[in-house]
Amino acid sequence: MGRTVISGGTVVTATETMTADVLIDGSTVVALAAPGIHSWTEGADKVIDATGKLVLPGGIDVHTHMELPFGGTYSADTFETGSRAAAWGGTTTIIDFAVQAKGQSAMDGFEAWMKKAEGKCAIDYAFHMITGDINDQTLKEMDMLMDEGVTSFKLFMAYPGVFYSTDGDILRAMQKAADIGAMVAMHAENGIAIDVLVEQALARGETDPIYHGIVRRSILEGEATSRAIALAEVAGAPLYIVHMTAKEALDAVTAARDLGKNVFAETCPQYLFLDLDNMGNGFEGAKYIASPPLRDRAEGHQERLWKGLATNDLQIVSTDHCPFCMGDHPTFGTQKQLGVGDFTKIPNGMPGVEPRMELIYHGGVSAGRLSLNRFVDVMCTTPAKMFGMFPKKGTIAIGSDADIVLWDPTGTKTMSVDNHHMAVDYSCYEGLEITGTVETVISKGQVIIADGEYHGVAGDGEYIKRGTSQTLI
Amino acid sequence: MGRTVISGGTVVTATETMTADVLIDGSTVVALAAPGIHSWTEGADKVIDATGKLVLPGGIDVHTHMELPFGGTYSADTFETGSRAAAWGGTTTIIDFAVQAKGQSAMDGFEAWMKKAEGKCAIDYAFHMITGDINDQTLKEMDMLMDEGVTSFKLFMAYPGVFYSTDGDILRAMQKAADIGAMVAMHAENGIAIDVLVEQALARGETDPIYHGIVRRSILEGEATSRAIALAEVAGAPLYIVHMTAKEALDAVTAARDLGKNVFAETCPQYLFLDLDNMGNGFEGAKYIASPPLRDRAEGHQERLWKGLATNDLQIVSTDHCPFCMGDHPTFGTQKQLGVGDFTKIPNGMPGVEPRMELIYHGGVSAGRLSLNRFVDVMCTTPAKMFGMFPKKGTIAIGSDADIVLWDPTGTKTMSVDNHHMAVDYSCYEGLEITGTVETVISKGQVIIADGEYHGVAGDGEYIKRGTSQTLI
Amino acid sequence: MGRTVISGGTVVTATETMTADVLIDGSTVVALAAPGIHSWTEGADKVIDATGKLVLPGGIDVHTHMELPFGGTYSADTFETGSRAAAWGGTTTIIDFAVQAKGQSAMDGFEAWMKKAEGKCAIDYAFHMITGDINDQTLKEMDMLMDEGVTSFKLFMAYPGVFYSTDGDILRAMQKAADIGAMVAMHAENGIAIDVLVEQALARGETDPIYHGIVRRSILEGEATSRAIALAEVAGAPLYIVHMTAKEALDAVTAARDLGKNVFAETCPQYLFLDLDNMGNGFEGAKYIASPPLRDRAEGHQERLWKGLATNDLQIVSTDHCPFCMGDHPTFGTQKQLGVGDFTKIPNGMPGVEPRMELIYHGGVSAGRLSLNRFVDVMCTTPAKMFGMFPKKGTIAIGSDADIVLWDPTGTKTMSVDNHHMAVDYSCYEGLEITGTVETVISKGQVIIADGEYHGVAGDGEYIKRGTSQTLI
Amino acid sequence: MGRTVISGGTVVTATETMTADVLIDGSTVVALAAPGIHSWTEGADKVIDATGKLVLPGGIDVHTHMELPFGGTYSADTFETGSRAAAWGGTTTIIDFAVQAKGQSAMDGFEAWMKKAEGKCAIDYAFHMITGDINDQTLKEMDMLMDEGVTSFKLFMAYPGVFYSTDGDILRAMQKAADIGAMVAMHAENGIAIDVLVEQALARGETDPIYHGIVRRSILEGEATSRAIALAEVAGAPLYIVHMTAKEALDAVTAARDLGKNVFAETCPQYLFLDLDNMGNGFEGAKYIASPPLRDRAEGHQERLWKGLATNDLQIVSTDHCPFCMGDHPTFGTQKQLGVGDFTKIPNGMPGVEPRMELIYHGGVSAGRLSLNRFVDVMCTTPAKMFGMFPKKGTIAIGSDADIVLWDPTGTKTMSVDNHHMAVDYSCYEGLEITGTVETVISKGQVIIADGEYHGVAGDGEYIKRGTSQTLI
Repeated sequence: MGRTVISGGTVVTATETMTADVLIDGSTVVALAAPGIHSWTEGADKVIDATGKLVLPGGIDVHTHMELPFGGTYSADTFETGSRAAAWGGTTTIIDFAVQAKGQSAMDGFEAWMKKAEGKCAIDYAFHMITGDINDQTLKEMDMLMDEGVTSFKLFMAYPGVFYSTDGDILRAMQKAADIGAMVAMHAENGIAIDVLVEQALARGETDPIYHGIVRRSILEGEATSRAIALAEVAGAPLYIVHMTAKEALDAVTAARDLGKNVFAETCPQYLFLDLDNMGNGFEGAKYIASPPLRDRAEGHQERLWKGLATNDLQIVSTDHCPFCMGDHPTFGTQKQLGVGDFTKIPNGMPGVEPRMELIYHGGVSAGRLSLNRFVDVMCTTPAKMFGMFPKKGTIAIGSDADIVLWDPTGTKTMSVDNHHMAVDYSCYEGLEITGTVETVISKGQVIIADGEYHGVAGDGEYIKRGTSQTLI
Repeated sequence: MGRTVISGGTVVTATETMTADVLIDGSTVVALAAPGIHSWTEGADKVIDATGKLVLPGGIDVHTHMELPFGGTYSADTFETGSRAAAWGGTTTIIDFAVQAKGQSAMDGFEAWMKKAEGKCAIDYAFHMITGDINDQTLKEMDMLMDEGVTSFKLFMAYPGVFYSTDGDILRAMQKAADIGAMVAMHAENGIAIDVLVEQALARGETDPIYHGIVRRSILEGEATSRAIALAEVAGAPLYIVHMTAKEALDAVTAARDLGKNVFAETCPQYLFLDLDNMGNGFEGAKYIASPPLRDRAEGHQERLWKGLATNDLQIVSTDHCPFCMGDHPTFGTQKQLGVGDFTKIPNGMPGVEPRMELIYHGGVSAGRLSLNRFVDVMCTTPAKMFGMFPKKGTIAIGSDADIVLWDPTGTKTMSVDNHHMAVDYSCYEGLEITGTVETVISKGQVIIADGEYHGVAGDGEYIKRGTSQTLI
Repeated sequence: MGRTVISGGTVVTATETMTADVLIDGSTVVALAAPGIHSWTEGADKVIDATGKLVLPGGIDVHTHMELPFGGTYSADTFETGSRAAAWGGTTTIIDFAVQAKGQSAMDGFEAWMKKAEGKCAIDYAFHMITGDINDQTLKEMDMLMDEGVTSFKLFMAYPGVFYSTDGDILRAMQKAADIGAMVAMHAENGIAIDVLVEQALARGETDPIYHGIVRRSILEGEATSRAIALAEVAGAPLYIVHMTAKEALDAVTAARDLGKNVFAETCPQYLFLDLDNMGNGFEGAKYIASPPLRDRAEGHQERLWKGLATNDLQIVSTDHCPFCMGDHPTFGTQKQLGVGDFTKIPNGMPGVEPRMELIYHGGVSAGRLSLNRFVDVMCTTPAKMFGMFPKKGTIAIGSDADIVLWDPTGTKTMSVDNHHMAVDYSCYEGLEITGTVETVISKGQVIIADGEYHGVAGDGEYIKRGTSQTLI
Repeated sequence: MGRTVISGGTVVTATETMTADVLIDGSTVVALAAPGIHSWTEGADKVIDATGKLVLPGGIDVHTHMELPFGGTYSADTFETGSRAAAWGGTTTIIDFAVQAKGQSAMDGFEAWMKKAEGKCAIDYAFHMITGDINDQTLKEMDMLMDEGVTSFKLFMAYPGVFYSTDGDILRAMQKAADIGAMVAMHAENGIAIDVLVEQALARGETDPIYHGIVRRSILEGEATSRAIALAEVAGAPLYIVHMTAKEALDAVTAARDLGKNVFAETCPQYLFLDLDNMGNGFEGAKYIASPPLRDRAEGHQERLWKGLATNDLQIVSTDHCPFCMGDHPTFGTQKQLGVGDFTKIPNGMPGVEPRMELIYHGGVSAGRLSLNRFVDVMCTTPAKMFGMFPKKGTIAIGSDADIVLWDPTGTKTMSVDNHHMAVDYSCYEGLEITGTVETVISKGQVIIADGEYHGVAGDGEYIKRGTSQTLI
C-alpha cells in the first residue's frame, strides 16, 4: 500500500489534541509530525488533506450481532452488510458474539461464527463468546478460546431456557475467568422475575410492544447488576456489564468502582437518545424492542447515563446492533412482525452500528456533555483496552494500525433509513439532525470510505486475536 | 383462675418504666395501679410480691422449629419439651413453622403441624407457613391460611431442591402477600452460588464443620437480602428477613428502611455471642452448624448487629431454635453425627429457645448496649406487632393476656447443659456467666414457673390466630 | 382536686392503644383499668365520659419563644397568652428558650426568663438556654443551669453578630455538654455564607420576603447540619438539630443515626404544610418569614420530612412558635412591617403553638402517614424523653402527671385567625379544614379546656426542673 | 539548540506506551516516529540512546513553597535550590504559591514572588495565588491575575489570623472564580475547631510534635472538605482540594464526583508513605510536622488514598514541598527548633519536591498499585490539564515542550539526605530503597540532568502564563 500522509488535521486521542501530520507506512502509523518538518510528504504515495478536520482513531463497537439466529429468523445484517455499514459510520473494528447454544460445544460455536465472518468483513473483527451452557466441557473450552483470542465470555441473567445461566453457572464461569485472566460480560436483568411479569401481562391481554418496556422493570436490571457484582467479588473476577440502561444499575456499578473493584459497564446510543415513549404507538413500537428496554425519561435514567460517561462510571458506548426488519427481510423473511399480538415474539434488537459515532459526537461533544478526548476514549481507546486490542487498535500512535477517521466537526446530516447502509428498513433516529459527520475512513492504511463512496471489498477485514483486558486495577 | 396481683414491682414496657401493681383477672390484665391506692389486693386470690423485681411482658420467640424433620432425623425438642424450655427462659409465646414440602398441600402441612402441637404446649403458639412449593394451589391456600391465622409465609433463597424458591416463585408469592396483607419472611442466602462453593470444598476434602462457615460467604447473604428487597419493591409487599448474620445484609436493610420501605429483620443470640471460631476444633464445631453460619468476628458483623438492634435497623431477636444432639437422641437416633466426614450432612440448627431472654438482657441491658425499654421492644412488643398478635401479646396493658415475667436484674447464673431444659445434650453457651435472670413466669394469669419449679401441664398453651402485621409504614 | 375518672375512652400511648379508664388522684395518674372492674368511679369527684374519644398524653412543644425580644420588638405572645393558646391546642407542656445575650451572664438570662414566666403560664413549662456568648464564664454557668433543670443548650450557626457561635465556641460548648450530660440543640444554617447571599440580594434590589427564602439555600442548612454532627463527634456529645427543613440536612442526620450516633432532630408543622410559594405575593409573604425558611415544594423536602418522621430519622415535631403581627401589636407596636422594603428587617417567626397537635394529626394520622402511636411518640413521648421530663410528662402511665387530652378523631375544624387564641393577627393555615380535634384538656388533673371554654387561670403552670436526656444510645 | 533525537525508548503518555523515537526541534517535540523510518537521526545535533528506558513527560509538581516566609523564618529552598532539586527528581515544572498577606495587595504579592523567582529557576514555573485577604480589592485583582496567567486561587479554612478565610470570604471568592473561570484550591481543615483542641493540648502540657498530629483530627479535614464542596456548589465553582490526607475527606470528594461535580483533589507522597508514628520519638517528630498531619496508619487512610489514585477519585500527586532544617539553616537561621517545647511554633512543612517521581513510581508502579499510564497521568498530564498548561506541558506530543525524563525502570537507589539536592538537612525517607530511577532530564529540549551531573544554569526556567483548567465536566 505504500506511504500515506494525512496532513494538516487535528489529531485527537484520549489524551491529546494536536496539529500533526500522520504518517502511515502500509497498514501502520509510523510517525506523527508537526506539519512541514519532514520530507515524507514528498515521497508519499498518497496525501490526504485533513485541514479543518479532526483526525480520530477508528471507532470500535464492542457489541454487535450480525446474522444472529433469534426466534426463528436472523438479525438482518450479515457480516458483510453490517461491517460495511459500520465502516460508513466511522467504525473500523467490531466485536461480535459467537454463540454456544445449550447442549453444544463452545468451540464449535466459535468456529461456526468464524466461518460466517470469513472473507465477508469490511473492517477488522473479533469475537466474544456467548457461553449459553456452562458445564465442565465449556470451562475447558474457555482455555482453548483464550488461545484463539476470545478473551471475554458473555453470560445472561435473562432469557431462561435460552441463554440463561444460574448463579451457580455464573460463579463457576467467573472463577474460571479469574483463573485464566478472562473478562466476564453480563446481560444483567433478573429474567426469572421478569418472565413472571411477562406472563401476567400477557394474561391481562397486554400484548403491545410498550408492555415489553413496562414489565422489564429497571429495578430488576439494578438487582441483577448488584448480584453480578457480588458474584464477581466472590470469584475474584473482573466484570463488564453490557448495554446498561438503568440508573439503579449505574448506581451499583458506581459504588463498586468507588471501592476500586474491577467492574465496568457500557451503554448504547439508544438508551441515551430514546425512551419508553418510542415503544408506544401500537406495533410501531416494535422498532424499539430490545432488552433491556428503553426507559421512562421522567425517571432520569438518560441523564444519569450521560453523566456516568462523563465521570467514567460508564466506560464505553457500544451499540448492541441487532437489526430486524419491520417488513419482510429479503432473505430471512418475517422479522418484527413475528410478534404481532404478542410482544414476547418480537425479535429483540435495534439497528445501530452505523450511526454510533455520529450520535455520540452529536449528543456528547456538540452538546457539551463530553470533551473531545473523552469521546475518543469511550468510543475507541477504552474499548480497545477493555478487550485486549490496544495499542494495535483504539488510538493513533506509533505502531498502531492505521485505523483512522477524518471527521468534519461542522458537518451536518439528517439520520434516515434513506441514507443509511444497514440492511434494515427503518432508522431509530429518522429525521434527527446531527452535527459532526464522518468524512473519510481509513482501515489499516486503506481508504475505505471517501467522497461518499465505499472503496473496500468484502474480506478486507481480518480476525483479531485479542489479548486480556488492559483496564484492570 | 380468679384474681392475681403482682405487687410492688417495676413494670417495664417498650415505652414505660413504672412502679405499679398489675391486676389480673383470670387470664387478662385488667388494671395497672399505683401501689396502695386500691383494695384489689385484699380480695385477690393470689398476691405475688415483685418488690425489687422487674415485671416484664412475656417473651415472644417468633422463630422456632420444634420436631422439625431434617435430613433423616427430627429437631430434638418436641412441642412439649421445647415450649416448656421456652417457658423456663421467660418466653410465653412462640411462632413455629408449619411446613409445606415440595409437591404437597400447604393446608395439609398446616394441619399436620397443628396436630403435632395440639395439647402439648406449655405456652401459647402460632405458626408461620414455610411455602416450599409455590404454585397456583399454594397461592390459593395462602388465603385459607390467612383465615386460620397464619399471616406470614416463609420462603428460602437457599436449599435448592428442598425449600428453595426461584425469584419467580418469590415474586409471585410476594404479589399474593401484597394482595392479602401477608408478610413474607425470607431466608436470604444465595443458595445456588453457595452450593457451588460447597461442592468445590468437598472436592478439596474440606469436610469439617468449619468449612460450612467458610463457604457460606457473608457477601452472599448480603446479595440475597438486596435481591429480596428489590423483589419486594416490585411486588409492593412487606419483607421480613429472618436470622440475619451479616453486616452486608444489615447495610441493605438499613438503606431500604432509610427510604421508608417496609423491610424488617431479626437476628438471633448465636450471631450476637458466637463466631466462626466456635465452628473449629474438629467435629466439635458441629454444635454450631446453622445456616446462615456464625461469622468471622474480625469482620465486625457482631458489633454491627448489636448496633442495628439499638438503632432499630434490626427489630427483633428470635432464636431459630432447632436443636440436634451431638450424641444419640433417645427417640430420633443419630443427629449431628450424621455429618461426620461431610459437613453438608450435619443437621442444621442450634438450641436456643430457653436462654434467649437471659442472653440478650445480659449482652444488651447489662452491657449497656440496649435500654431496658428497647430490650422489651425487641424481645416482646415488636415481635407481637410484627406478626399481628398485639396487644393480646407483647406488652403489659389493660386487656392484654397476662403473660408476665418477674425478672431479677441482679440474679446471676451459669449457662450449662446441666441446668437447661431443652432436650438436647449440649449448650452453645456452656460456662457463660450472665447477670439478669428469670424468676417467675406467668402465662395467661397462671404461674407456670416459680421457685425453680414448673407448675404447668402440657396443653396449657393454645393456638393463636394471628392478624396482619401492625408495623407497616 | 380529689379523684377524677376518664371513663370508656381509647387510651393511646407510644406503644399501646387500649380501652381503659384512667384514674387520677389529684394531679397524678394512679391507675389504668378495664372499664367496669373497679369501684373507683363511684367515689370519684369527677367522671369524664370519653366514650368514642381518644385519650392522649398532653402534647409537649419543645420549641417556643414567648415574648422574645427580636429586632426591636417582642414576639406577640406573652407566656400568659401563648401558654393558654398552647392549652387550647392540646399542649400541656412547653419548653421555651431563656436567652443569654452577648456579653451577659447566662444565669442572669435564665433568671430573667423565669421571672417573665412566673405566675403567667396556663401549663407547665421548662427552659432551654440560648448560650449566645460562649466563654469561660458561660461554661461554668452551664453547671449551675443543669442544677436548675436547664439541661439543654442552644447554639446558633446562623445570625452572625447576634447569637452566632464559631465552630470553636461550639466545640467548647459541646465538650462541656459531653462532660455534664447536657444536650446541645443547634440552629444549623451556615449564617456566614448566607449573609453574603443576603447582602448580594439586597444590592440587587431583591427586598421582598420571597428573597429571604431564596437566599437561605437548603444546601447551606445541610452543610451546617453535617458540620454540627462532625463537631459533636469530636466532642463526644449528643446533638439535637432544631427546626429542620431541608432534605440535605435530614440525609446527614439519617447517615449519622445509621451509625448509631446520638444525633436527633425536630421539624415543625410549617415545614410539613407550607412552602416557598407562601412567601411570595409581595409583602404578604412576611407572614411566613422564619429561619430556616419554607422550602421549594418541587425539591421534595416536605415529603422527605414526613417520611423521616415515619422512619424515626426525625424524632419530634415542635413549633418554633414565635409570632409577630402583620399590623400593629397592641403592646409591642410595629412588627412584621419593620421589614417593608428590606426582608432582613422582618422579625423572624410564625405563630404555631396552638395548631400543632391538630395539624400533625390531620396530615399525619388522618392522611395515613403516621400511626396513632407514632403520632403520640413524636408529639408527646419522645419530646419528654429527649429533654429529661419522662415519665412525669409525655405518657399516660402510673405515676405520670395527669396531662391528658380527649381527642375527637372525627371532629372537624377550619383553621382561622378568627377561632385561634394566639395573640397574633393572622393564621398561617387560614381556611385549612382539618379532621381530628381537641375536645378536653386536662393539666395535672385539672380540666383547663372543656366545652369550648378555658377553665384555668394564669399561674396554673409550674416550672419543670428537667433531668438529662433519656434517649441516648 | 538544534535537533535532538531520543531514540529507541519506550514512550509513555497517559494513554500510550509505544516504542518510538522522539524528535525535538529546539525546545519542542516535533515528531514521534517508529525507529528507523526516518532520516532525522542522521542530521540531528544530538542523539540520546533510550534503549531499555522509559521516556516520560517531565513531572509537574503543582504544590511547592520555595523560600516561603513562615513563623519568622523561610522555607529552606530558594527558587534556585528548590527548582534544581526538582529537576534532579525528574520534575520539569513547578507551580509555587505567591502570597497575599492580610492587608496587602494580591498583585503586589504576585510581583514580589515573580521577582524572587526571576532568573533563578532551573525549570519552568508558574504561580497559584494565596489570597489571604478577601475583599473588594482582592476580587478585582483576581481579574488582573488571570491576565498574568495566575488562574487558581488558594484559600485556607485553617490558620485563623493568618491565611484563614471565613465561609463568607470563601463564597465570595468562589463566586468570582465561577465568573472568571478560575479554580479555587482549598486547604480544608476546620482551623477554628482545631485551634481549640491545640489550646487545650498545650494547656495539658502536650507540647511534643506528636500532639500536632493528634489534635488535627481527620474528621475535621473531612468536615472542611464537605463544607468546601457545599460552598462550591452554591457558587457554581470548581474546587480543588490540596494535600488531602484523610479518608473522610476522600469519601466526600468521591461522593461529589459520583454526582458529576467539578471537585478534584491531590495528595502528597508523605501521606502515602509515612504515618503518625513518624511524628513520635520526641522532637525528632518535628521533621514530619505539616498540616494536615500524617495520619494513623491503622485507620486506613493510606490505602484509601492509594486506591483513590487508582480510581481517579484523587487526580494528582503533588508535594507541598516546604522544607525547614532541623539544625540551623545557613541563611535563615533556626527553623524546626523554633518549636522546641511548643509544637505550634514548629514551622510546618516537609521537603519533598525531589523524590516525588521516584517515590510514586516505587510505591505505585513497582508495587502494582498504578499502571504506568496512570502514573504519568497523576504526575504529569492531569497536573497540566488541571491548571491550564496542557499540551505545552504534561505530555509528549507534537508541539509540546520537550520536557522529558529518561527513566530506568530497574534502577535502584537508597533515599538519603546524603544524595539529595534539596537545601535541607534531613530526608523524610532516609534509608528507603526504591526501584525505578531518574536517569536523564530534558527541559525544553535541553539536557539538564545527565550522567549524575546538573548541566543547566539558574534562569533556564521561565514563567508560564497559565490558562484555565482543562478538566472541567
